[in-house]
Amino acid sequence: MSTALPVGRTAHVTVPASSANLGPGFDTLGLAVSLYDHVDVEVTECGLEVTVEGQGAGEVPLDERHLVVRAVRAGLNAAGVTAPGLKVTCRNSIPQSRGLGSSASAAVAGVAAANGLAGFVLDDAAVVQLASDFEGHPDNAAASVLGSAIVGWTEVPVDGTTKPQYRAVQIPADARIRATALVPDFRASTQAVRRVLPSDVTHMDARFNVSRCAVMTVAIQHHPELLWEGTRDRLHQPYRADVLPVTAEWVNRLRNRGWPAYLSGAGPTVMVLSTEPVDPQILDQARADGLAVHELEVAGPVEVTVD
Amino acid sequence: MSTALPVGRTAHVTVPASSANLGPGFDTLGLAVSLYDHVDVEVTECGLEVTVEGQGAGEVPLDERHLVVRAVRAGLNAAGVTAPGLKVTCRNSIPQSRGLGSSASAAVAGVAAANGLAGFVLDDAAVVQLASDFEGHPDNAAASVLGSAIVGWTEVPVDGTTKPQYRAVQIPADARIRATALVPDFRASTQAVRRVLPSDVTHMDARFNVSRCAVMTVAIQHHPELLWEGTRDRLHQPYRADVLPVTAEWVNRLRNRGWPAYLSGAGPTVMVLSTEPVDPQILDQARADGLAVHELEVAGPVEVTVD
Repeated sequence: MSTALPVGRTAHVTVPASSANLGPGFDTLGLAVSLYDHVDVEVTECGLEVTVEGQGAGEVPLDERHLVVRAVRAGLNAAGVTAPGLKVTCRNSIPQSRGLGSSASAAVAGVAAANGLAGFVLDDAAVVQLASDFEGHPDNAAASVLGSAIVGWTEVPVDGTTKPQYRAVQIPADARIRATALVPDFRASTQAVRRVLPSDVTHMDARFNVSRCAVMTVAIQHHPELLWEGTRDRLHQPYRADVLPVTAEWVNRLRNRGWPAYLSGAGPTVMVLSTEPVDPQILDQARADGLAVHELEVAGPVEVTVD
Repeated sequence: MSTALPVGRTAHVTVPASSANLGPGFDTLGLAVSLYDHVDVEVTECGLEVTVEGQGAGEVPLDERHLVVRAVRAGLNAAGVTAPGLKVTCRNSIPQSRGLGSSASAAVAGVAAANGLAGFVLDDAAVVQLASDFEGHPDNAAASVLGSAIVGWTEVPVDGTTKPQYRAVQIPADARIRATALVPDFRASTQAVRRVLPSDVTHMDARFNVSRCAVMTVAIQHHPELLWEGTRDRLHQPYRADVLPVTAEWVNRLRNRGWPAYLSGAGPTVMVLSTEPVDPQILDQARADGLAVHELEVAGPVEVTVD
């Protein structure tokens, strides 16, 4: 039994971007950052109308294939409600395919909008589950749902029918931490950048990342002086350096000057987490190299209002 | 220039045992637990007198090879003091070669005693460094030095001469967590039990442990409901099950009944971290199987008084 939503009801969503991995926390750590997409979803009498302004305008499909629309449908279905028609309006600021979690933000926006329209019947865990299911890992989506920093993991059932369970817990980031994104002007395919990872790694590299991921989990909460050590990684960045050479160059350039820089998600964005603003000279050099610089803060959770 | 210590000055040390790895945190996570060795170190006119009561009595060498003595020497040296003679008295409760960090506790006791004799000139980081140097990893030693839970890591210089830097940061364990140790009546050599580890692991297993180590870091601080998920491991326990079959049996038996059990250090001790006391029936079965059961608490740091 599902309930039909009243025509005219509208959900307004503000969803933050996110940075995943944070160095060693492959598919595990995520951080919400203060770049936002704004999505309005209105219940209409029939049909589907999608408009996109800003990032992605003129590029993404404006029909049922649109990720926000698919996520709205998944959310409405989970909430047990139906809408005779939908009008979806997206005003996007999050650069797409840059390693800032724009896809996860879109999925979160859609599910959160549906949840708002249905009267907030889904809890955060359910929103994380539905939104992460579009990605196959919870790190970006959970950051956008819960805000601040998150630890995410996936429980994989072996019965062959149950879906993976995407789980996450928020860890409040130290209020002094700022995030500086250096965004190259090209895109990276998450799938392509995952393909360069090896099937095996040394036990030594595995335990290196185990320890640094624990350090990062502590650093981001209470010990920002450990952010440099806590962003060291041997499980993905060394392999991705070859296909993302500009990113690798900037990560090294920043790290060698003491800035805790890492490859954000699958790149190509370089992210720096620090308590002090990054040296303006370095940022000017990055701009001269064609990278867009965003000086950001840690963001709160997705926000939804309904009228 | 070193200063000679006055004859008669005596340091009294109470040092806790520790459990390392905590499941996924190989060479990374440690927890101090409430089993203690008591060590008195007195400055004498000449020579060396060592007595050991309790665990290890009649087994360990009572001369300069004794680990506590070696650690006292390292501590005195680092503190820039000398002792004309030493009387070392050990009353030990920590079972040896069982995965409860007895060697690390001995090293910590010696360094901490020397530091006390010298007037506490070494800070915690220096004590962690000196004590960990006997082990090659900081997880047990740092837990005994700092108390509660710790995240440890090693920074390896590449100049070929500087020693590895053993680093650690304390993470306060949730006050509700208790530790139940099931101690088999045989010993395991840490080196032998390290040799069964593979040189390589799958990327999938590496990232599994990365995520669970982050979960454990959060679970032990603020989310004890995640202790079961946070003690899952694929980097060492599966390989050690073959050489520690009794331990593996008990870890599985407990985990399959919902208890967050793991192989403590290199074993053979099975440790359970939980907010509720472990089911007395299971503990009785363990005793009937010949395991000693210790129902413990999370311990504070090493304590030193000087007179």
